[in-house]
Amino acid sequence: MSDAQAAFEPSGIITLTSDFGTSGPYVGVLKGVMLGQLATARIVDLTHDVEVHWPAEAGFWLERAHRAFPAGTVHVAVVESTSGTSRLGLVVEIDGHVFVGPDNGLLAPMAGRPGARVFEIGLSTLRQLGVAKVSPTFRGRDAQAPVGGALAAGRVEPSAVGAPVDDWAPSLLEPAVARGAEIHGTVVTVDGFGNIVTNIDGEQLARLGLVEVIIAGKVLTLRKSYTEVPPGEILALVNAFGVLEVARSQRSAADLLGIGRGAPVIARRRFQRD
Amino acid sequence: MSDAQAAFEPSGIITLTSDFGTSGPYVGVLKGVMLGQLATARIVDLTHDVEVHWPAEAGFWLERAHRAFPAGTVHVAVVESTSGTSRLGLVVEIDGHVFVGPDNGLLAPMAGRPGARVFEIGLSTLRQLGVAKVSPTFRGRDAQAPVGGALAAGRVEPSAVGAPVDDWAPSLLEPAVARGAEIHGTVVTVDGFGNIVTNIDGEQLARLGLVEVIIAGKVLTLRKSYTEVPPGEILALVNAFGVLEVARSQRSAADLLGIGRGAPVIARRRFQRD
Amino acid sequence: MSDAQAAFEPSGIITLTSDFGTSGPYVGVLKGVMLGQLATARIVDLTHDVEVHWPAEAGFWLERAHRAFPAGTVHVAVVESTSGTSRLGLVVEIDGHVFVGPDNGLLAPMAGRPGARVFEIGLSTLRQLGVAKVSPTFRGRDAQAPVGGALAAGRVEPSAVGAPVDDWAPSLLEPAVARGAEIHGTVVTVDGFGNIVTNIDGEQLARLGLVEVIIAGKVLTLRKSYTEVPPGEILALVNAFGVLEVARSQRSAADLLGIGRGAPVIARRRFQRD
Repeated sequence: MSDAQAAFEPSGIITLTSDFGTSGPYVGVLKGVMLGQLATARIVDLTHDVEVHWPAEAGFWLERAHRAFPAGTVHVAVVESTSGTSRLGLVVEIDGHVFVGPDNGLLAPMAGRPGARVFEIGLSTLRQLGVAKVSPTFRGRDAQAPVGGALAAGRVEPSAVGAPVDDWAPSLLEPAVARGAEIHGTVVTVDGFGNIVTNIDGEQLARLGLVEVIIAGKVLTLRKSYTEVPPGEILALVNAFGVLEVARSQRSAADLLGIGRGAPVIARRRFQRD
Repeated sequence: MSDAQAAFEPSGIITLTSDFGTSGPYVGVLKGVMLGQLATARIVDLTHDVEVHWPAEAGFWLERAHRAFPAGTVHVAVVESTSGTSRLGLVVEIDGHVFVGPDNGLLAPMAGRPGARVFEIGLSTLRQLGVAKVSPTFRGRDAQAPVGGALAAGRVEPSAVGAPVDDWAPSLLEPAVARGAEIHGTVVTVDGFGNIVTNIDGEQLARLGLVEVIIAGKVLTLRKSYTEVPPGEILALVNAFGVLEVARSQRSAADLLGIGRGAPVIARRRFQRD
Repeated sequence: MSDAQAAFEPSGIITLTSDFGTSGPYVGVLKGVMLGQLATARIVDLTHDVEVHWPAEAGFWLERAHRAFPAGTVHVAVVESTSGTSRLGLVVEIDGHVFVGPDNGLLAPMAGRPGARVFEIGLSTLRQLGVAKVSPTFRGRDAQAPVGGALAAGRVEPSAVGAPVDDWAPSLLEPAVARGAEIHGTVVTVDGFGNIVTNIDGEQLARLGLVEVIIAGKVLTLRKSYTEVPPGEILALVNAFGVLEVARSQRSAADLLGIGRGAPVIARRRFQRD
């Protein structure tokens, strides 16, 4: 490789992310196809409950969560949407990890990083992997899963899945934007505890110095931990994934504020008042 | 073997299907028992959210989904019901796959296929596998799981689990029936996207030529893909599992039509009107 | 070891229990960290839907469910609460199994058993395992998961994770108490079928002889199986986990009685009336 990135050495570990839920056999079927390529694969569910047909949430979680996995992991993500191109799928290689998914913005957070290499899944690769026919209604099973399994098996190199791509679809989620001493971001999702997760990075915040957060008409001081405020009170903090979160100790912040995915959030420098 | 079926060669892969949900440790306990028989087993959840006490849905999904797994896979399914026999469980071998479950119709879609071999789980087999006592309230743990694990380990052959059986309980779900130029079927389930899944096979439909579908008083033209109609509009298509599905692009078809499991659906030849 | 307990020999199997739900990547991230310590680990979900911030339910299920797993299994459980100590976590070794979790009462049912050995996770152990920083908001990822993975890998012995501990936090769930011919217990949880699970042990009940159960103002005779009463009728029985359960054949008992977690339940000797 010409750049300084760590090369991909498959570990046999695969993560799987989708909007399929778990009430049908869809996720199991993807795993069956991957085990058909690598019978010893260790497949880990990231989540299958991201917002349906909204690839931005899956891409956000993947970008944040993949760091917990050892290098050599293949990350397969399937969230179809009406946006994006008609490509069979993309493969992104970055930092010793490989990502496989549709070309609808899901993989943009990884594809846009310096040093990333992006390839398009070719029909001839699928043929080679034993896929007889690609169903128009289940490309996850017929394109992303077999390629993910084969990459984890080392049966195919990332750069051999198809042609290099530089015009992949962008994410539907705008990155947070700095405007002077303010950062304008967006609520990405609300987690199972009712915590509001935003796309404002903790390192961006650190540059502001003292920070206060404006959300749903409220102004909150940035805290270090959930326990700094009494139970039931709302607070802002940089969470364990390194992004700005608005939470409520022991309770749901989203219910209290009445907001969810897509809501605006602003972080700004806080000037000492005296 | 006297017939032309591929013999079963265990791959160490097991799928698991139940109506246990995931809010208790029941599914985990089944896996613990299977790992006790084969510590290196790769166990894949198919789904644990099939309709409670209704084995027909589990059997339907198993019959459709097992094809995504490599030959040599053991499929364990536990959905108890008041129907069926008092047998400890059945083992069905077909096409290089093995299925383990209760004798209440769950395994009928596999047991009824030409070339299938069906055996009854014997108490002596359980003793041999270290099961001291079979709880009347958790046969999945004490009968199906240990047998499934032992089959995946190659510690016991399908034909050695017990006596051959030819009077297994039939499915509670009637197969779709052809009546002249009509096929009368049933809604099996509604998936997480609100898509209505039926038991009418795509190959049956192909024999009719041009097809229209009657469901909940509506007449729908058969389409090839979700994208053939505008978002929100309802459509019929043969889905990625090869069965007739009634869907609504980007929305829930089941909510719109107000129907669910057990509802009738008819596919019929469509005569050109001019 | 000085006592008669079986020593811990890691099998590479890990169970995982939490209150994280499955709508975010939190559970997947824990698994990524564990696979970073042992790439070949077989990780089994026990459940991630225990009552949020209430470690007693997780501890109860672990104590009952771990017996289904082979000796050599590591059980990692993460349910944070405001109770307990500020320790990074505990490791409990008992009967050839090892348990890893926070010091807030979750592990008390195991730690309190005769022969159990209890150790505190030391910061130097985490450093040794490659953990650069422990996030105050995600100790599961930064303390319990790496230690659990390393124990399963045999890279660290239970007794080497840190100092022995004898003042671990007690469970928030009082054990059932015998008072003459009565046992006073508590509802631990309601499972996905609507069955009411209590903390009264079947062996305690056996000592009473003939038993009747008082719950929500109703008096129930103890039965042996769900099928002893007609569908819809309520019954008490010792379930497959060996504890008193109040169930309703084919229906939800919890909905009928209108009670849940924490409700009192009494079992008492039943005197023949004639």
